Amino acid sequence: MPSIVAEKLNQAVKQLDELNLDLWLTFVRETSLTSDPSLDLILGLPMTWHSAFLVSRKGDKIAIVGRHDADAVRRLAVYDDVLAYDESIRPVLRETVARLDPRTIALNESVNDPAADGLTVGMWRYLSDTFAQTPYAARFVPAEKLIGAVRGRKSKTEIRRIQAAIQSAEQLLQGVGQGLRPGQTEQAIAARLTKARKAQRLDTAWDEGMCPIVNAGPDSPVGHGGPGLTKIERGQLLHIDFGVRQDEYCSDLQRMWYFLDKGEKRAPDEVRRAWDACWGAVLAGAEVLKPGVQGWEVDAAARRDLVQAGYPEYRHALGHQLGRTAHDGATLLGPRWERYGDTPFGVVQEGNVFTLELDVVVPGRGQIGIEEDVVVTKDGIRWLSKPQRKLWLV
Amino acid sequence: MPSIVAEKLNQAVKQLDELNLDLWLTFVRETSLTSDPSLDLILGLPMTWHSAFLVSRKGDKIAIVGRHDADAVRRLAVYDDVLAYDESIRPVLRETVARLDPRTIALNESVNDPAADGLTVGMWRYLSDTFAQTPYAARFVPAEKLIGAVRGRKSKTEIRRIQAAIQSAEQLLQGVGQGLRPGQTEQAIAARLTKARKAQRLDTAWDEGMCPIVNAGPDSPVGHGGPGLTKIERGQLLHIDFGVRQDEYCSDLQRMWYFLDKGEKRAPDEVRRAWDACWGAVLAGAEVLKPGVQGWEVDAAARRDLVQAGYPEYRHALGHQLGRTAHDGATLLGPRWERYGDTPFGVVQEGNVFTLELDVVVPGRGQIGIEEDVVVTKDGIRWLSKPQRKLWLV
Repeated sequence: MPSIVAEKLNQAVKQLDELNLDLWLTFVRETSLTSDPSLDLILGLPMTWHSAFLVSRKGDKIAIVGRHDADAVRRLAVYDDVLAYDESIRPVLRETVARLDPRTIALNESVNDPAADGLTVGMWRYLSDTFAQTPYAARFVPAEKLIGAVRGRKSKTEIRRIQAAIQSAEQLLQGVGQGLRPGQTEQAIAARLTKARKAQRLDTAWDEGMCPIVNAGPDSPVGHGGPGLTKIERGQLLHIDFGVRQDEYCSDLQRMWYFLDKGEKRAPDEVRRAWDACWGAVLAGAEVLKPGVQGWEVDAAARRDLVQAGYPEYRHALGHQLGRTAHDGATLLGPRWERYGDTPFGVVQEGNVFTLELDVVVPGRGQIGIEEDVVVTKDGIRWLSKPQRKLWLV
Repeated sequence: MPSIVAEKLNQAVKQLDELNLDLWLTFVRETSLTSDPSLDLILGLPMTWHSAFLVSRKGDKIAIVGRHDADAVRRLAVYDDVLAYDESIRPVLRETVARLDPRTIALNESVNDPAADGLTVGMWRYLSDTFAQTPYAARFVPAEKLIGAVRGRKSKTEIRRIQAAIQSAEQLLQGVGQGLRPGQTEQAIAARLTKARKAQRLDTAWDEGMCPIVNAGPDSPVGHGGPGLTKIERGQLLHIDFGVRQDEYCSDLQRMWYFLDKGEKRAPDEVRRAWDACWGAVLAGAEVLKPGVQGWEVDAAARRDLVQAGYPEYRHALGHQLGRTAHDGATLLGPRWERYGDTPFGVVQEGNVFTLELDVVVPGRGQIGIEEDVVVTKDGIRWLSKPQRKLWLV
């Protein structure tokens, strides 16, 4: 079985051709200080000195690294040439690029996509200076679309790993559900989930202080804050947003419980109506999601459906990509707001993994939040999570 | 006791004045994907949306962050103003900068110092575009020297933490020393050290696959490779390079053992001569190290001493800074080689923490490597590690 790094390098060669680009150049140093998100895809090792990784449309895969790092890169056995330098990377980098003679050199910079924006300003100036007396400084272009495709079109191995991370999160969420009682604080519920996660030696999919997010009832502040001292009471909604990182890949799910009041046998009408409206909107988005559509079109379908059902618009995107990170960059299933830049205009591709998520506040009861994970297939989607179609009752 | 973030922000205000700069602007997004090393110093939280942190020479400390992140930043209680936005950071960032009206705006970019090079090209383009119709786009300057001083001049709290990390590493190294026997492989020795480290729940100071580095005898490849299957034998030198990260700060030490051959009571002459030469050179460097000297002068003193003693020059710098990372950026005690850029020309400042390290190969015996950690005082240095002045005998 090829490694993910090997899969991604081969994918890069194909994508260079599709995008009519000649060369992709990733340029890093001291990666424990500044991280280029693309490096995990095409190397998976930390680098200390100036290091260049070149992939050409013709299939060349060349690494230029400091003498001390060369053996570790060679052992990966994914680069055909591993060139080691002692004093300066400049001469060998210039010679190598001149030999490949590309018409375009794609660099890791992007105004819109943080996952494609790993090149720092100092390193860009160093590159510009290195190629100043050559024709190549004028051939730099952003690798934004290339990285979006290489990172965003998940290989089979990657999809398997994401699905495993989803299953682990689902089991942990079901486990925490079994111990729920009225009067528990958000922090106590979060602590149980964290303990169960650590027992399985899993990391959180995003910052530990905010994973899980737990919202108990109508008085819990919604947003990025960590779990608080608010207690869940009968007649209220409990909402958990949670994901794990397992084997380098992430899951991201939201799950909901309703705490039955005395005498109740099911959730009250206003809760069930809101739940059905949320699911109607998620499914309306899912219906539209397939290769070739732009991200905003998927968001718009869900948003329209929710508003038509009489609920206010959610204040975020319907979905983001999921992979090595919980927010995995590139195409966003989001509205055309300035804050999102060009990302809602990205075109959905086969192999993209997205969340589908939205929320509605039910006054006096709490927040309903739905979030499932899907992979884009040839002509639609496949659910990677087991969709929570019914509110769980406590 | 003030937090390190509060200490560093106050230090930044003073340094802006010393360097005659008006404003320091740190600009980040999705920090789980791309990390700006300065953010740990002045915030210590991950950020998702575009976020700006402004420190002025007059003492203003202003954070501009997405609505969802604002509460977490306010709770730190180190920024006087925390401004939250919903749709775009641009208007509030423009207004804030216009209100402060700085003559210079220092941005996190540096060709030479990776620790000062956190701004990505895409984010720099976004900033340039945001200020395109204002006088401020022409006032951007590199924050290189500012960050070098803020990061490099360690506070008392930071020095205490580094010293604690050094003591932990020293104890772990002594522990592994007690179990050494001829015939053990590098990997077995490394595994024992790793087990002891994990038992104390400490992280490695650098990439786990290369921490510790273990070199057994003359046949072990020197460099950044991980421990191998080479066995240590009688009559040989064992060399370990190791450090831990404890409470966010690092140590970095090298320790040496000689395995007595049958009948030997001390190390052979050629080993003892090389050891003394290494220590002579380290002390020659330490003698020169004080505020005001340039990094290369310290390296040159040690290098000259070693060569005069009849040994070849070491192929690296005499010392690097130590702090939140093992290679903590800015001024390097290194030779004026192209690879090191301007860093050997940096001026040593009080509060800088440096390693002092060099090595000599003893043919047929192995590699001698010495590495100690020191802090620069008002007029010299103080040893933070307990210097290994004598070879340990097994």
